[in-house]
Amino acid sequence: MQIALAEAEAAAARAEVPVGAVLVRNGQILAIAGNRVEELSDPTAHAEILAIRAAAAERGGRLEGCDLYVTLEPCPMCAAAIALARIRRVYFGAYDPKGGGIDHGARVFDHPTCHHRPEIYGGLDERRSAALLRDFFRARR
Amino acid sequence: MQIALAEAEAAAARAEVPVGAVLVRNGQILAIAGNRVEELSDPTAHAEILAIRAAAAERGGRLEGCDLYVTLEPCPMCAAAIALARIRRVYFGAYDPKGGGIDHGARVFDHPTCHHRPEIYGGLDERRSAALLRDFFRARR
Repeated sequence: MQIALAEAEAAAARAEVPVGAVLVRNGQILAIAGNRVEELSDPTAHAEILAIRAAAAERGGRLEGCDLYVTLEPCPMCAAAIALARIRRVYFGAYDPKGGGIDHGARVFDHPTCHHRPEIYGGLDERRSAALLRDFFRARR
Repeated sequence: MQIALAEAEAAAARAEVPVGAVLVRNGQILAIAGNRVEELSDPTAHAEILAIRAAAAERGGRLEGCDLYVTLEPCPMCAAAIALARIRRVYFGAYDPKGGGIDHGARVFDHPTCHHRPEIYGGLDERRSAALLRDFFRARR
């Protein structure tokens, strides 16, 4: 999670919403990514999606047995991508009542049609993740 | 929708789940894409995501005023990406009770936290879209 937080800080320095993600398997890092929505002019370029795409390209598709660390509760797009990629565990930092799609809103994993539900651990290093986001948006208001 | 269906057929010919998508603005085609999950080893490479990414890269980000034609009801990942991209209207072919995320499952647009809800028109040329998928999966069983 420390590496994900560092990626979130790097995203903030690029004027991107500060979210960072790391994909791990058997203690080995497969991918590290920060949010690049602005830089890439790509509304899908959330940290989680970039990490999943990078790791999947390297591993030939799905990510069974892989665990994702991300500084913010994934949105519904990222939650559904996590299910499609068959990620084993998701550890996330700050809860996101407005944009989250796991414990809030669409609650993507809570439907019988969801083909894969990872183990979820929310609130990891929550204060630091939340402070990063709060400071970022405060500076822009 | 005819172009989207042709893209879906082309996807089937590549042994990809046959889904095609077209993004349009003011009668002009911005992007055409078929599903390339297998080819790219990318679980996020659904037709809708590829079309959104291509059009957004060209237009510098969001896709306000753009309309999406897609042969199958978008999954929750694609539905949420459609909201993030601020797409105006979605015309889709076959309803997808198992994997859909608009009229089924997570119903991504039906939550107060969804920041943008496009106009939705489902069931367009539904029979042909559904037949394509049915034939594809039947041949693989």
